[in-house]
Amino acid sequence: MPTVAELAVLVDGEHPFGDGSVSITGPSALADARPGEISFFGHPRYAADLKTTRAAAVLVPRDFSGETPAICIRVEDPSAAFTIVTGQFIPASNAPAPGIHPSAVVDRSARIAADATVQAQAVIEAEAVIGAGTVVGAGCYVGRAARLGAACLLHPQVMVREHCVVGDRVILHSGVIVGSDGFGYDTKDGRHDKIPQIGCVIVGHDVEIGANTTIDRARFGRTLIGEGTKIDNLVMIAHNVVIGRHCIICAQVGISGSTQIGDYVVIAGQAGLVGHIKVGDRAIIGAQSGLSNDLEPKAIVVGSPPRPIGEWKRGIVRLDRLGQLYDRVKKLEQRAG
Amino acid sequence: MPTVAELAVLVDGEHPFGDGSVSITGPSALADARPGEISFFGHPRYAADLKTTRAAAVLVPRDFSGETPAICIRVEDPSAAFTIVTGQFIPASNAPAPGIHPSAVVDRSARIAADATVQAQAVIEAEAVIGAGTVVGAGCYVGRAARLGAACLLHPQVMVREHCVVGDRVILHSGVIVGSDGFGYDTKDGRHDKIPQIGCVIVGHDVEIGANTTIDRARFGRTLIGEGTKIDNLVMIAHNVVIGRHCIICAQVGISGSTQIGDYVVIAGQAGLVGHIKVGDRAIIGAQSGLSNDLEPKAIVVGSPPRPIGEWKRGIVRLDRLGQLYDRVKKLEQRAG
Amino acid sequence: MPTVAELAVLVDGEHPFGDGSVSITGPSALADARPGEISFFGHPRYAADLKTTRAAAVLVPRDFSGETPAICIRVEDPSAAFTIVTGQFIPASNAPAPGIHPSAVVDRSARIAADATVQAQAVIEAEAVIGAGTVVGAGCYVGRAARLGAACLLHPQVMVREHCVVGDRVILHSGVIVGSDGFGYDTKDGRHDKIPQIGCVIVGHDVEIGANTTIDRARFGRTLIGEGTKIDNLVMIAHNVVIGRHCIICAQVGISGSTQIGDYVVIAGQAGLVGHIKVGDRAIIGAQSGLSNDLEPKAIVVGSPPRPIGEWKRGIVRLDRLGQLYDRVKKLEQRAG
Repeated sequence: MPTVAELAVLVDGEHPFGDGSVSITGPSALADARPGEISFFGHPRYAADLKTTRAAAVLVPRDFSGETPAICIRVEDPSAAFTIVTGQFIPASNAPAPGIHPSAVVDRSARIAADATVQAQAVIEAEAVIGAGTVVGAGCYVGRAARLGAACLLHPQVMVREHCVVGDRVILHSGVIVGSDGFGYDTKDGRHDKIPQIGCVIVGHDVEIGANTTIDRARFGRTLIGEGTKIDNLVMIAHNVVIGRHCIICAQVGISGSTQIGDYVVIAGQAGLVGHIKVGDRAIIGAQSGLSNDLEPKAIVVGSPPRPIGEWKRGIVRLDRLGQLYDRVKKLEQRAG
Repeated sequence: MPTVAELAVLVDGEHPFGDGSVSITGPSALADARPGEISFFGHPRYAADLKTTRAAAVLVPRDFSGETPAICIRVEDPSAAFTIVTGQFIPASNAPAPGIHPSAVVDRSARIAADATVQAQAVIEAEAVIGAGTVVGAGCYVGRAARLGAACLLHPQVMVREHCVVGDRVILHSGVIVGSDGFGYDTKDGRHDKIPQIGCVIVGHDVEIGANTTIDRARFGRTLIGEGTKIDNLVMIAHNVVIGRHCIICAQVGISGSTQIGDYVVIAGQAGLVGHIKVGDRAIIGAQSGLSNDLEPKAIVVGSPPRPIGEWKRGIVRLDRLGQLYDRVKKLEQRAG
Repeated sequence: MPTVAELAVLVDGEHPFGDGSVSITGPSALADARPGEISFFGHPRYAADLKTTRAAAVLVPRDFSGETPAICIRVEDPSAAFTIVTGQFIPASNAPAPGIHPSAVVDRSARIAADATVQAQAVIEAEAVIGAGTVVGAGCYVGRAARLGAACLLHPQVMVREHCVVGDRVILHSGVIVGSDGFGYDTKDGRHDKIPQIGCVIVGHDVEIGANTTIDRARFGRTLIGEGTKIDNLVMIAHNVVIGRHCIICAQVGISGSTQIGDYVVIAGQAGLVGHIKVGDRAIIGAQSGLSNDLEPKAIVVGSPPRPIGEWKRGIVRLDRLGQLYDRVKKLEQRAG
């Protein structure tokens, strides 16, 4: 077990007071920590927890001057430092040995890298390609001619349908569906005839996609998730959507067909975007917003319809005072006789 | 088949008129019932159905005085009584015999109770523990060192990832993901580095979780679902969330990271909660609400931002009359010249 | 490869200018097309793409008079014509040969049509019925006594629980859950006792259901999805809901228990409906709307609470001018002294 002094070195921190030789048993939250554990103080809202924590040591900002019973380690960024400290306590990898589990069903025309792993009950269809070091979890399905890059991690029960392409170092969580059919019909006399969805999905390098998120294949061409983009759970990405690089898409967001999202965009939880619009680079869309028009680069909007955040806040204030406005108008009317 | 008189005894009901010896063939809704079936009258909105029902018998409130062609059984709570009656008609259990299906893949270090059931194609990883009488459905996945208590029911295709803990008598519906990674990144120069999520999920006794709901594991420590809490389908519970006991979380709700929910809280469908807030005991949050601040115990709020329900209703009325307010102001301006 | 002239005949189109003998290599979007491909011009928003497309040919409306470097084929409905053209390029079917994969687990009392397909790792329980020509994808689960009609396509990892009934030509996408328990409890002293959900789900002919959508079984009787209705991804249909024929239910919609939807209804993305209400035939409900009352046939509503679309738009304008209204009232007050 590492000591306080060792961990301080690891995170380039100072511990001006307290016993550096104390052994640390693991990481924990301030409120939950047991004696011997280390925690961090990353936000003023946890000041009360800091005062009463039972943690042996706490990572605090360089300019910290508050009270705590724990040994303080002063660092530049307590949250980032805690991530590094946490890494010291991650149990030895659970990763199974490379190879194909005997219960998996793998078509003989599939190409599986020698050091890839295919776990129990997985199904790999004809002509699929699995890259070097990639892990295909238990019960996953990789469709015909789908291609997974190198060093990917598919948690159990992920679906990648036929002809879809996944880059390198991609993490797909359980229940993710890549390549389900887009929702497209030709409607005649009220009846809906299916439009074939013959495109695919391309997922860029270093993307992570959360549990039970669905990404529909394109009507033709491809639905695209740009490099480095991170998508949370239960998100819906419709057919032919293009998402740029290094975006953050939070849980339960829905993006309709053919909409294009720039780079470094952030979309907060439960927001919805109509189809066929464009969102500029570095735009930020607030939670539960409903977007039905193009959005300028760097715009920060909230609401439905969305408004710039300052305007949105003023709008809330106006609504809260609306009862008073009615009273004021009534008074004016009474005066006017 | 039970008779009307027998069922009346079962539910502590009276049937002052009608033939108690009539045999009842099964339960049904008022509008759908076929001759011989029993139904119930639980809400005035079904009064029209009650008049025309073909049911042989109907459970009605003690003070019922309406018209119906069916034999009435008067009871304290028609809906609760109907649940009891329904129990008489549930077909003999479909539960498979205890034991491990030969197609399941079970690590030899897993500990499976002798009377537990592991169905076809399931995967149980090393050191997992399955309690007495628990049923692990077809195609389920139980990760390394995960622990399921006694008398649980995992419907087919449920995922419980490594190190997560599930209490006794828990019901997990198909597609539930317990223990997917939390959505956490350190962002530098617009790029997102994954923060390891090394905590777990703890699900208390008597919890039920609906289809395709996802519960992320904690960054460290645990995400917690309190005893007796019931969660509907397609709900998103983020990392380090703590939900109290005996809560009701309706479909498509999203709760962001580290938020704490008290006991006996009700959250209606599609509501969203930001991270790091606290909701007091017995609070009620309306459908589609967006909550971004702490909430007092017993508060009843609706909207986004949420307002006490009375205020929210008055706000709706004010909005609907806003056109008139514009007209009134215009008239005042015209008078004022 | 078909020529421009051949494709023009196929879609009943004219190509007054350009070389009809050019071979077409595949379909693509205007912006993405490579030389040799065919695209279509279906909406004015793509006029800029039309001018710069590298497509060899483009399907345009009969009255088209714009500029494009591509050979134009004039047709009645470019989008519909493109669907037909696309059909010429769909690769030969990936459908596996009929039969039961040796890794599937099929109860011997299940009845599987001779030309049906059961793919790898699927599980078919006792007394289930699989109709002629139906494909049950890899890892699917069909519960005890569930019935699938003819010519259905269950993509991998679909769940149909016990006693549910699926019509003919139904398409279920991956992660769909048909027949999970309804969310119903009797609450006493704050504790929730499960109400048995002993009904089923009936899915009509020609229905398509999107990825990770959940449809709960009825408390008693059935939850019903009418013939020809199309449901997108991540939708929640609660117990005892009745949806009519030929409806369109977009992604992430939630419909609460016992609500009844008429025929030809359209519900846009992320809308929510409370329980026990009725929506009339041909009604249209806008995105993110929250519906808590009955809706007339042919009504077109948006918002929460929903308003007729014209009124809703006027309401938005009024809100945007609310700051000015406050100023106007202040000015009136100042004048009034």
